[in-house]
Amino acid sequence: MIRMTLNKGLQFTAVDDTGHRVVVDTDTEYGGLDQGIRPIEFLLVSLGGCMGMDIVGILQKKGGKINRFEIVLDGKRAADHPRRYEKIFVKIICEGDYRQEDLARSLELSRDKYCGAFATLQNPPEIEFSL
Amino acid sequence: MIRMTLNKGLQFTAVDDTGHRVVVDTDTEYGGLDQGIRPIEFLLVSLGGCMGMDIVGILQKKGGKINRFEIVLDGKRAADHPRRYEKIFVKIICEGDYRQEDLARSLELSRDKYCGAFATLQNPPEIEFSL
Repeated sequence: MIRMTLNKGLQFTAVDDTGHRVVVDTDTEYGGLDQGIRPIEFLLVSLGGCMGMDIVGILQKKGGKINRFEIVLDGKRAADHPRRYEKIFVKIICEGDYRQEDLARSLELSRDKYCGAFATLQNPPEIEFSL
Repeated sequence: MIRMTLNKGLQFTAVDDTGHRVVVDTDTEYGGLDQGIRPIEFLLVSLGGCMGMDIVGILQKKGGKINRFEIVLDGKRAADHPRRYEKIFVKIICEGDYRQEDLARSLELSRDKYCGAFATLQNPPEIEFSL
């Protein structure tokens, strides 16, 4: 569960069940305080974190040694409101001692079997509101 | 753009274009350090932040005064891997001096017209990978 509280302007703080928190914010010209990542970009944070953890974990189980691992994500937004992400680009940068085919296989396993964020982004959940 | 770097264990730090950063983490039993919100829950952070900013902004433009505003989000995950969110629950708590119909209308406008995170979660983006 995530509880989000309005701070000031349009800035929110999100807190999870065990007290981890993050500031979500927007541009000052839109009424934010520019002190946190933008809401829609947290979709990229979710996808990158989920797939990154999968890939690193699987590659290490296959005996790979990782010295540096990064995921860079970007989204192409629609021109018109609601400006959804039409396309998301995910680039994986992995340095270390591992077999390239094991990295490719780890990515496939995350995408096709393990990553809940990817699966949610590809199979729309029902969303229910209450006021 | 979001750049995510592996820290230690399965913990990542995500950074946006202007340097805002957030830790993404998982349970210690899975190899994390339990110092940040879980990857899939950032989908809720994204949705709640995006809709929260819309609703607060629209309600204020309609003349509403808000004393306290919270969004509580939870997800029902599938039993089997990849354990996607099958359903997401969004509860809005708004205290202040406003008309209930204006709050309901603000929610509708966010859902149907303005919220890019909601629209992305309801219309799957293409996701392209590169290694």
